[in-house]
Amino acid sequence: MARIDGRLPFQMRSLRLVTGVNPYAEGACLSAFGDTEVLCTASVERGVPGFLEGSGKGWVTAEYAMLPRATHTRTGRDHQKGGRAREISRLIGRSLRASVNLRVLDGYTIRVDCDVLVADGGTRTASITGGWVALAQAMRGLGRSPKLQIAAVSLGRVGGELYLDLAYHEDSVAEVDLNLVLAPGGRLVEVQGTGEDGLFTPAELADMVRAGTEAAEQIFTAQKNALLGQ
Amino acid sequence: MARIDGRLPFQMRSLRLVTGVNPYAEGACLSAFGDTEVLCTASVERGVPGFLEGSGKGWVTAEYAMLPRATHTRTGRDHQKGGRAREISRLIGRSLRASVNLRVLDGYTIRVDCDVLVADGGTRTASITGGWVALAQAMRGLGRSPKLQIAAVSLGRVGGELYLDLAYHEDSVAEVDLNLVLAPGGRLVEVQGTGEDGLFTPAELADMVRAGTEAAEQIFTAQKNALLGQ
Amino acid sequence: MARIDGRLPFQMRSLRLVTGVNPYAEGACLSAFGDTEVLCTASVERGVPGFLEGSGKGWVTAEYAMLPRATHTRTGRDHQKGGRAREISRLIGRSLRASVNLRVLDGYTIRVDCDVLVADGGTRTASITGGWVALAQAMRGLGRSPKLQIAAVSLGRVGGELYLDLAYHEDSVAEVDLNLVLAPGGRLVEVQGTGEDGLFTPAELADMVRAGTEAAEQIFTAQKNALLGQ
Amino acid sequence: MARIDGRLPFQMRSLRLVTGVNPYAEGACLSAFGDTEVLCTASVERGVPGFLEGSGKGWVTAEYAMLPRATHTRTGRDHQKGGRAREISRLIGRSLRASVNLRVLDGYTIRVDCDVLVADGGTRTASITGGWVALAQAMRGLGRSPKLQIAAVSLGRVGGELYLDLAYHEDSVAEVDLNLVLAPGGRLVEVQGTGEDGLFTPAELADMVRAGTEAAEQIFTAQKNALLGQ
Amino acid sequence: MARIDGRLPFQMRSLRLVTGVNPYAEGACLSAFGDTEVLCTASVERGVPGFLEGSGKGWVTAEYAMLPRATHTRTGRDHQKGGRAREISRLIGRSLRASVNLRVLDGYTIRVDCDVLVADGGTRTASITGGWVALAQAMRGLGRSPKLQIAAVSLGRVGGELYLDLAYHEDSVAEVDLNLVLAPGGRLVEVQGTGEDGLFTPAELADMVRAGTEAAEQIFTAQKNALLGQ
Amino acid sequence: MARIDGRLPFQMRSLRLVTGVNPYAEGACLSAFGDTEVLCTASVERGVPGFLEGSGKGWVTAEYAMLPRATHTRTGRDHQKGGRAREISRLIGRSLRASVNLRVLDGYTIRVDCDVLVADGGTRTASITGGWVALAQAMRGLGRSPKLQIAAVSLGRVGGELYLDLAYHEDSVAEVDLNLVLAPGGRLVEVQGTGEDGLFTPAELADMVRAGTEAAEQIFTAQKNALLGQ
Repeated sequence: MARIDGRLPFQMRSLRLVTGVNPYAEGACLSAFGDTEVLCTASVERGVPGFLEGSGKGWVTAEYAMLPRATHTRTGRDHQKGGRAREISRLIGRSLRASVNLRVLDGYTIRVDCDVLVADGGTRTASITGGWVALAQAMRGLGRSPKLQIAAVSLGRVGGELYLDLAYHEDSVAEVDLNLVLAPGGRLVEVQGTGEDGLFTPAELADMVRAGTEAAEQIFTAQKNALLGQ
Repeated sequence: MARIDGRLPFQMRSLRLVTGVNPYAEGACLSAFGDTEVLCTASVERGVPGFLEGSGKGWVTAEYAMLPRATHTRTGRDHQKGGRAREISRLIGRSLRASVNLRVLDGYTIRVDCDVLVADGGTRTASITGGWVALAQAMRGLGRSPKLQIAAVSLGRVGGELYLDLAYHEDSVAEVDLNLVLAPGGRLVEVQGTGEDGLFTPAELADMVRAGTEAAEQIFTAQKNALLGQ
Repeated sequence: MARIDGRLPFQMRSLRLVTGVNPYAEGACLSAFGDTEVLCTASVERGVPGFLEGSGKGWVTAEYAMLPRATHTRTGRDHQKGGRAREISRLIGRSLRASVNLRVLDGYTIRVDCDVLVADGGTRTASITGGWVALAQAMRGLGRSPKLQIAAVSLGRVGGELYLDLAYHEDSVAEVDLNLVLAPGGRLVEVQGTGEDGLFTPAELADMVRAGTEAAEQIFTAQKNALLGQ
Repeated sequence: MARIDGRLPFQMRSLRLVTGVNPYAEGACLSAFGDTEVLCTASVERGVPGFLEGSGKGWVTAEYAMLPRATHTRTGRDHQKGGRAREISRLIGRSLRASVNLRVLDGYTIRVDCDVLVADGGTRTASITGGWVALAQAMRGLGRSPKLQIAAVSLGRVGGELYLDLAYHEDSVAEVDLNLVLAPGGRLVEVQGTGEDGLFTPAELADMVRAGTEAAEQIFTAQKNALLGQ
Repeated sequence: MARIDGRLPFQMRSLRLVTGVNPYAEGACLSAFGDTEVLCTASVERGVPGFLEGSGKGWVTAEYAMLPRATHTRTGRDHQKGGRAREISRLIGRSLRASVNLRVLDGYTIRVDCDVLVADGGTRTASITGGWVALAQAMRGLGRSPKLQIAAVSLGRVGGELYLDLAYHEDSVAEVDLNLVLAPGGRLVEVQGTGEDGLFTPAELADMVRAGTEAAEQIFTAQKNALLGQ
Repeated sequence: MARIDGRLPFQMRSLRLVTGVNPYAEGACLSAFGDTEVLCTASVERGVPGFLEGSGKGWVTAEYAMLPRATHTRTGRDHQKGGRAREISRLIGRSLRASVNLRVLDGYTIRVDCDVLVADGGTRTASITGGWVALAQAMRGLGRSPKLQIAAVSLGRVGGELYLDLAYHEDSVAEVDLNLVLAPGGRLVEVQGTGEDGLFTPAELADMVRAGTEAAEQIFTAQKNALLGQ
């Protein structure tokens, strides 16, 4: 069965990672997968949270939010702050921290803000992908660099078929939803799979991990180009 | 004394009003005065607030917010919601309502969201200016139109000189700060003048009102072009 | 057209400024314009807010609130804290700070509380007028004094006529609403004008400023008498 | 040992109950015990809380709060809303409800606001005493009346001596603190006794109840006079 | 008239005080009166609240809460935090502090958490009774002990009869409700009596205090056994 | 390398699932994995959330919380409500809903509360496991049953070894953390894997899924016995 926009099952939407989009932030990247757009900024601050004082480590954290009209119908600002946004913020922060040796950031906190301008599915994976570019740019300004490159993709099962990079109209009817955060070499940083409307098998899980790993290679290239300013 | 960026005292920064920036909103306009950028969307909803039920009137309201890294240094999301943001939201909503005959909106609420992407001074006047474009576009979708065109400009006194459209580096040292919301023909919708660091005279007030009125004419033209898609 | 209570267009309601109304506060003044009553207290505290530490400056701030039954029908306490009360608090604080050289208050914060006991229009201008008396009294206790006397009046256009010091029944139908904070010599501290239900011209603005300036002279006298205990 | 202000152990401070202090409220009473001043208003509203709908009963409730400078040093508004204020609100509401047959109020809610202007000890008992006057006045406006008159007094043990109606300087060093809400004939509505800094015996409890009962008779007379407008 | 469960008017329900119910807390006691079950833990922390710093005193405080399904029908978690829970927390904390010389706790804060697992009436008195056991156990771990043993019982008037230790079905129809916190020798720490649905006389108050004093002796024995591990 | 408590790598701690632990709830189960204890109750309520009205479906939701002293050192109640608790609540609710045909619950909402009494690792999996028992029991009371049995287990990598059912001392040093929600036949409901301190390979993921599937069979048996009251 063909996908509505004609893509192949494991084909990603057009990907844009644009730097230079904020005059003040130490790192900034507009991350777009198809219509989905997330503005990611990385802010470097002196000091670390209380629980890290004297530990020799710095800190990386993230905040995810949506503009009210990122969605098909407007979502009130109060609803933006619920458990879902905080859960996604925690996922982004955890993933970005996995890419960094916190010891090289001793004395600094980097806050990565991911504000969704348009939400057409895959906003959390677009946030991680663009957030990493902003983070790497901010670290470069400090003369440092991440220890690891990371990228994220979403997958799912729709009508019994496994698809990569679901748009909203697919995501909203998916039986299974999987978000992967990946490092080069097919290694896994995060696996978040949910049977929204049906169960899945270990074999399906393995197939999706394999497809995500391949897609990640394209994203790694795009991230490098964005950091080179190409 | 020359202005830092070489502008004449009553010269406006380059103005961009761009429509077509959001695939879902009934009206949308990116409003930029120099580096300042505000993303304005207008959302049409069925229904009116309780206090208007059965009144034969619709409603227009606005919400103003900043992305955390719109500012030189990051501002926490909690600080975005304080009295200042709500005060500005109220000003924008009041101004936009002045441009509309609420009776032609009976049964509808239009919410105008003004989210500041970059804050280099004049964010509230950019919000009103772009918010009106988004509002007019949303009303056009309903087969209606505002009764009045409105635009906003900021003025101030810096080092004894009266200036138009202050950038942040000017605004932060201004002795007097004035925001005007204007309708064609030099008529006033709102006057908000504050002696931040000094008093001002009725004559200075009159001079600033006159300069603002002239600048508004350029803005009215840009708004019309944006709505025509030029 | 005559005003309901028989006043002339630019005639103020009876004004009472009463000190000695609180046994604990460093400054206190009951400020009444007609039926409107605001209890203003000034509290001197050691220490300054964080952003002023080491600056050689003290601080003056204000909080405005209404008792639930200050209004014709009861207003819940939760509704008292919304954007409107904070916006008025900010206006009062800004105005009072304009009257003081913060350097003479180094090491001190003065908090001016303006609690509305009865709200018959003009509560923000009564708050500024009485708040300044409380502030001056508190500064006298420290052996200091404000650099400037300030007072506030409201004006508006009702049925096409310009009026001074609107009572609630006038304010609720006003087309234009103007609040002025004034210093001696007709100088302006704050101008807040709103076309609630109609536009206004620069000429109308100038007329209202002139009438407000004249009324302020009576208020300045009443403030001085209150401080003298007369 | 004599009391600082020369009163006898079981002597009450001068008591003032003044009606006519608010132009809008259905009932209003300024309740003063010595320096302590509480402004009590009763507001009649149509409708009852959800849990009483269809029960044939109305409702009476109370809210207690302090102005920030009611106290020797200023208390922040946020601190006014803590557990203590709500606990006192609940006590006042419970006591006032005990004085009323809720069936005669079917279809109405009466809200009694007790706002402390000056707090020199005994603010909760002053609130109940004055709140009842405001409530009775509001019920009279509905052609109804309470089934019972109630009044409240505080007592305590200071330096081993039992005292009536403690002022702040006594209350702050009391070993035992007792608040009584009483009906005519020495009957008890509420007894709230606390060994703040020491235990007390059943005999001491009985002595304080007896002294409170006698003092209540004076208060009942003052309440009646206030309602008669004397 | 017999009680539903066949108890005599002044007969207590079966009482269980069980220690050893939490592997981490410095003190812990499951306190059960009939079906009512409260899990009390005492946590020892280094440091004292700001207002006690340098005073030579430590601190004891309490928090009372209910699990959502402690009640016949589920109570939302938000409703658990209202004024009632804080009022009870304050009562428990005040009572426990009365049992301790705070000077022997210098440098420590002990937090007693009382979480109601099943609420069949008398949860606040079960909390004080079990909370004291947890507190004493925690102090023993510090090589210290309370200066006083305390216990709490509830009483009430149902259908004109005075009853001890009311279960929920009795409590919900009681005309008068009395909670006593007692020390050995019939001395009183707290008396909280409320005419929920009727007045009470000083003689009834005295009778209930006498019955409560007798019941407390059984509780004191059970507390001692619990601490001995019997 | 042996585990501290002598268990084999894929050996579960002793498991207890005890029903009959709450006299009021429609379903209740104490779920203990080793020292970890979670009290799960299921409450049946009439009515469904607004978004399901008229849909022919009922609803199942969950709330997860910890008692303050469930942890080695006390955790304040405010910290219990943060993003983590809501994230876990959402996971539990989503998992339980996957086990039920919501159409058979039309007109009902079942709320499953999971309150952690002791937290020694694996509290979210213990909550799902015991929550399902409480849910099934509550449904039985309605004459219905879940469409699917579900159970949850945690796994992780510690020192390079893969372990099942991590206790707190293992969980706190795990490099990789995996929570699985499983249905009979090795099918997956949820997969939540995180490289807390290291990456993992698809092969490691597959190994852990296999071990979790085997452990789930024991849990399914224990759940059935608990429901049979054995």
